[in-house]
Amino acid sequence: MAKKPPQELTLAAGNGLVDRRSFLGRAGGVASALGLATLGMSSAQAEQLKVQDWTKTPGLGFTPYGQPSKYENGVARGPIIEPNAMYKTGPGSIRSPLQFLEGMITPNGLHFERSHNGIPDINPDEHRLLIHGLVKRPQVFTLEALSRYPMTSRISFVECAGNSGALYAKTAAEGTAQTLHGLLSCAEWTGVSLALILDEAGIHPKAKWLLAEGADPASMSRSVPLAKALDDVMIALYQNGERIRPSNGYPMRLLVPGFQGNMNVKWLHRIKLTEGPTMTRDETSRYSLLLKDGKVAQFKFPLDAKSVITRPSPGLTMKAPGLYEISGLAWSGNGTITRVDVSADGGKTFAPAALSGPVLPKAVTRFRIPWKWDGGPAMLQARAVDDTGYVQPTRDALVAERGLNPAYHNNAITNWSIAADGVIKHAYA
Amino acid sequence: MAKKPPQELTLAAGNGLVDRRSFLGRAGGVASALGLATLGMSSAQAEQLKVQDWTKTPGLGFTPYGQPSKYENGVARGPIIEPNAMYKTGPGSIRSPLQFLEGMITPNGLHFERSHNGIPDINPDEHRLLIHGLVKRPQVFTLEALSRYPMTSRISFVECAGNSGALYAKTAAEGTAQTLHGLLSCAEWTGVSLALILDEAGIHPKAKWLLAEGADPASMSRSVPLAKALDDVMIALYQNGERIRPSNGYPMRLLVPGFQGNMNVKWLHRIKLTEGPTMTRDETSRYSLLLKDGKVAQFKFPLDAKSVITRPSPGLTMKAPGLYEISGLAWSGNGTITRVDVSADGGKTFAPAALSGPVLPKAVTRFRIPWKWDGGPAMLQARAVDDTGYVQPTRDALVAERGLNPAYHNNAITNWSIAADGVIKHAYA
Repeated sequence: MAKKPPQELTLAAGNGLVDRRSFLGRAGGVASALGLATLGMSSAQAEQLKVQDWTKTPGLGFTPYGQPSKYENGVARGPIIEPNAMYKTGPGSIRSPLQFLEGMITPNGLHFERSHNGIPDINPDEHRLLIHGLVKRPQVFTLEALSRYPMTSRISFVECAGNSGALYAKTAAEGTAQTLHGLLSCAEWTGVSLALILDEAGIHPKAKWLLAEGADPASMSRSVPLAKALDDVMIALYQNGERIRPSNGYPMRLLVPGFQGNMNVKWLHRIKLTEGPTMTRDETSRYSLLLKDGKVAQFKFPLDAKSVITRPSPGLTMKAPGLYEISGLAWSGNGTITRVDVSADGGKTFAPAALSGPVLPKAVTRFRIPWKWDGGPAMLQARAVDDTGYVQPTRDALVAERGLNPAYHNNAITNWSIAADGVIKHAYA
Repeated sequence: MAKKPPQELTLAAGNGLVDRRSFLGRAGGVASALGLATLGMSSAQAEQLKVQDWTKTPGLGFTPYGQPSKYENGVARGPIIEPNAMYKTGPGSIRSPLQFLEGMITPNGLHFERSHNGIPDINPDEHRLLIHGLVKRPQVFTLEALSRYPMTSRISFVECAGNSGALYAKTAAEGTAQTLHGLLSCAEWTGVSLALILDEAGIHPKAKWLLAEGADPASMSRSVPLAKALDDVMIALYQNGERIRPSNGYPMRLLVPGFQGNMNVKWLHRIKLTEGPTMTRDETSRYSLLLKDGKVAQFKFPLDAKSVITRPSPGLTMKAPGLYEISGLAWSGNGTITRVDVSADGGKTFAPAALSGPVLPKAVTRFRIPWKWDGGPAMLQARAVDDTGYVQPTRDALVAERGLNPAYHNNAITNWSIAADGVIKHAYA
């Protein structure tokens, strides 16, 4: 193999961050020169590659509903604590393995789950959705009736308000993109506009809020401002093309784009229009932010702009210096991601990452930037900006403002520390 | 319940097609007046709705990898003939249940499959991708090496060239959206630009084509023009966020956006740059169009603009007159869908459907339009237009041009005939 002389990539920030456009114009054999592993060989050698057994015997037959390869068994949702929690019932959550995923869509089998008393086994033919309270014509919908209404689709993230809560800890928690930030997923949702359904029922002028209640054995319920309900809220029936799965609210859930996860009430069976918030258990005993002055920020609904680098990240390996791609997710409950800056030197210098389209409001956006790791210590950070002009804060700034009590809505910049041996850990900058 | 007087919707074409904007501005309780089934009741009655068993006992625990509800078992891929074929090995295909799906994403478990000798059970650590032929530096990639290269994502459809082949039959075949048109799916694909990999290998000036070969036991192989390879072809590693599944090419496949399905070579293990097409078995004995003059149209790669109404469609029921939504998919291998027109009177009059965003090139686009069925006979058709100005042809026009021999690339307008009893059948207009 005739090696080409190494070509230089254009550096965009400190510690090896490479201009994101370096590869867009086909830079000319630059990757292998920078230490990307391929096995260069002569054509004669190449022809002698081993013929694998699976090319010699007929393959497997079809299945009505497909599954991942057995070699991907390690790509699974998991709990942050109590390894057996996933097999029990009761309250809990399991998290998406963000470090193994790519693109913007979370496959349905790996969408995160949070439930307050297990997953109800709902017969869709018996399920009913009641619309009542401050309406002129109370309505009860079967799934079949609801399915005849005009539908809309949108790609939208859902994030638990408690996601990334570990970043309120005094010292940096050990963890991975999954265990620290995996209460986040993104799917294409299809269903009926809630505005249309409320219009059918006739909204009483006094109505300013609604109560949404699930048919789960916790009767999980939240209050939603009517203005939001009439804006972009959907009664979702489909997730990534197929009917929503039991763990995500089968046969119907509320989709409240950009608002904290548990307002997207799963197993939705009741909407009651009200004058004020209902002050349910799920919005008083929890899901509010205890601030450092002892006051509580209740009804902080939208999730502020945030990002996480998923690759490289803890649990993945970096075997040798050379060229890597830094890849991650950015999202904002307030609008559309306009920019993600990445740092390899712990926040001293930043370079803009490429955003992978389609870039949609209240959906995750995949960002990527090439990085030439020199084998020395590094600290990777990503910082998201949305179209309101909001800039994702450092952890220091967030803690200075809120203190360490809030537990929820932590959208601080995460810092992945990379040691000379290639081991990646969560560390405060 | 106080019934509001019926309100009129604005009609947009013959036989009840309703202006697609009727619902966008919240038309005021118009749906129930038009015969959409809800169970209106007093608040007192509503409070007495049955409390279902699943709200009274703790629900089910979590699972590492989720599955659909058991009540959705009927939503499955299936073969068009030989019900047991799916359990055998050998050549065959199973089709996506389009009539049960919504939105633009096909969930991975329901993506259509076509294989020529079963699905190989590939160990990703043992798999190799060889780049050779007219290149300056032959390369062999492991999955791990390839995974370090810069990646891109795009939402793209894959459609088998033989999809909808039944529409070449002299008399209208019985069938559903699944059995007639289900060799079509759409996913978000993530992987490495083939241009980047070929650039690593160094393209010899004489190279104008490439051979792509799979590691399946049929050694399925196709020739791809180099110009296309350098345009938008990807070595795809991920499908809807997770690693591609065995049935869709694990651990890597070619994604050739807009070109006929089997050029998107699955289980990709070899790319050889060549001066001309290799004339493989899979592009000479089949996947070419036998025209009515006895000539063969070989290497017709892009799939022309097409659409199919998925709801209502055969197998679904229409129990009573009233308001329905017509929903379907449109796509073009040559670009972006700009317009879908829908007819309820067998093609006499058409009205434009709403296109659900994001509308992306070489991806499916979901279209929808409301329809007030009066209970009489109807014939539903959709007609797609793309940004090249191409208009999906009627079956008569397609057959007049090509005859009944071609078997492949049938993109004619499909006609669903609806009888007064609500039964929906495939019928030529």
